[in-house]
Amino acid sequence: MTDPPDRRPGGRTARVRAQVLDAVRAELAEGGHEGLTVEGVATRAGVHRTTVYRRWRDVGGLLADLISAAGEIDWQPPDTGSLRGDLTALNEEILESLTVRPSFAVALMAASFHSEQAARAQTRLWEDRYAQCEVVVARAAGRGELPPGDTDARGLLIAATAPLYHASVLMRADPDPRLPARAAAAAVLAAAAGAFSAGGGTA
Amino acid sequence: MTDPPDRRPGGRTARVRAQVLDAVRAELAEGGHEGLTVEGVATRAGVHRTTVYRRWRDVGGLLADLISAAGEIDWQPPDTGSLRGDLTALNEEILESLTVRPSFAVALMAASFHSEQAARAQTRLWEDRYAQCEVVVARAAGRGELPPGDTDARGLLIAATAPLYHASVLMRADPDPRLPARAAAAAVLAAAAGAFSAGGGTA
Repeated sequence: MTDPPDRRPGGRTARVRAQVLDAVRAELAEGGHEGLTVEGVATRAGVHRTTVYRRWRDVGGLLADLISAAGEIDWQPPDTGSLRGDLTALNEEILESLTVRPSFAVALMAASFHSEQAARAQTRLWEDRYAQCEVVVARAAGRGELPPGDTDARGLLIAATAPLYHASVLMRADPDPRLPARAAAAAVLAAAAGAFSAGGGTA
Repeated sequence: MTDPPDRRPGGRTARVRAQVLDAVRAELAEGGHEGLTVEGVATRAGVHRTTVYRRWRDVGGLLADLISAAGEIDWQPPDTGSLRGDLTALNEEILESLTVRPSFAVALMAASFHSEQAARAQTRLWEDRYAQCEVVVARAAGRGELPPGDTDARGLLIAATAPLYHASVLMRADPDPRLPARAAAAAVLAAAAGAFSAGGGTA
C-alpha cells in the first residue's frame, strides 16, 4: 500500500490517529464501549488491523487515547465576570456533555470501570480540567468575591460540579435544567461563608 | 434432591436466595462483576444452575437482586444532634463503603453501567437512601439550624454527599479522611446562607 505524500500537519501518523479515533467515536455512539473491538474500529477506520494492534494494542489503549485526545482540545473555562456566572456556565457545559446522546463523557466513565488504562487517562483528564478551572477561583479572589486568605480552589470546584455528575451519571436522574445554577450558587454561598478558606468550614 | 424441613424464617426460598447472594458477593470480591457468571454463582452457592436461571435469569438479575437486598437492610441515618454532625457521620459511612476492599458499592456502580436491570435497582436504592436521609434535614429545621421556610432537603443532601462519590468513584483520588467533614461543613454553610431555601440561592 502506497500512501500519497501527506501535507496535513503531523502527516500520515496524525491522519491515521484521527481516522482511528473517529472510528472509535462512531463505534461508541452505535454500540457503547461494550461493543468496541479492535477489528471493528480498524474496519471502520479503513486501516490495517495490525496497525491498530501495533499502536493501540487493545480496546483499553484505544479508549485511553480517545480520552487523551479530549484533553488536547484547546478548552478554556468560562469567564463571565463573576464566580457564580463562571460556575453556572461550567455546570451547563457539564450537563450538556452528560445528557447529549450519545454521551462520550458517560461512555468513557463507564469504560474506565473496566480498563485500567482508560481509568488512568480519565483521572489525568479530570486533573487537567480541574487545574485549568482554578483560574476561575483566582479571578474571583482578585475581584474580592471570596474571603481574604487562601481558598481551596479544588474543593470549591468539586463542590460546585459534583452534584451534576452525581445526579446524571450515578443516580441517572432526568436532567434538571436548574441544577447547574443551583449547584453553582450553593458552592458560591459556601465559599463566601468561608467553607473553602484556610482553616475554614471544619472548625 | 430432598431438602430437610427448614425452620428458618422464609424457609427454603429465603435460604436459597441467601446462599446465592452470598455467592454473588464472594464472586464479586474475587473477580469484580466482569468475572460474574450464572454458572460460577450456582457452583459456589451449591444450588442447581437451573434454579438460578429460573429465578434470576442472568447476571443482571443477580446484581439487581443484590442491590435490592442492600436496600432491605434496616439502615438508619445518623442522629448526632446537629446537621453538621449528621452529615459528617453520613459521609464517613459513604467514604468507608467506597474505600473498603472489595467495595460492593463500587462494584455495583460499575455493574449498573452494563445492566439496565442493575441500573434500575441502583437508582431505586439511591432514591430510598436519600428519602430516608430527609429526616436529617427535618430534624435540623426543627432545631432551628436552617433558615425559616421550606428547604430543598434532597438538594442539600446531594450537595453534602456528592463530593465523596466524585472524588472516590469518578476521579479515583486517594481517600481524603478530611473530606467527609469538609463536604458536610460546606453544605451546612450553604444551607445556612439560604442556598437550599425556597427561592434561595438562585436569585
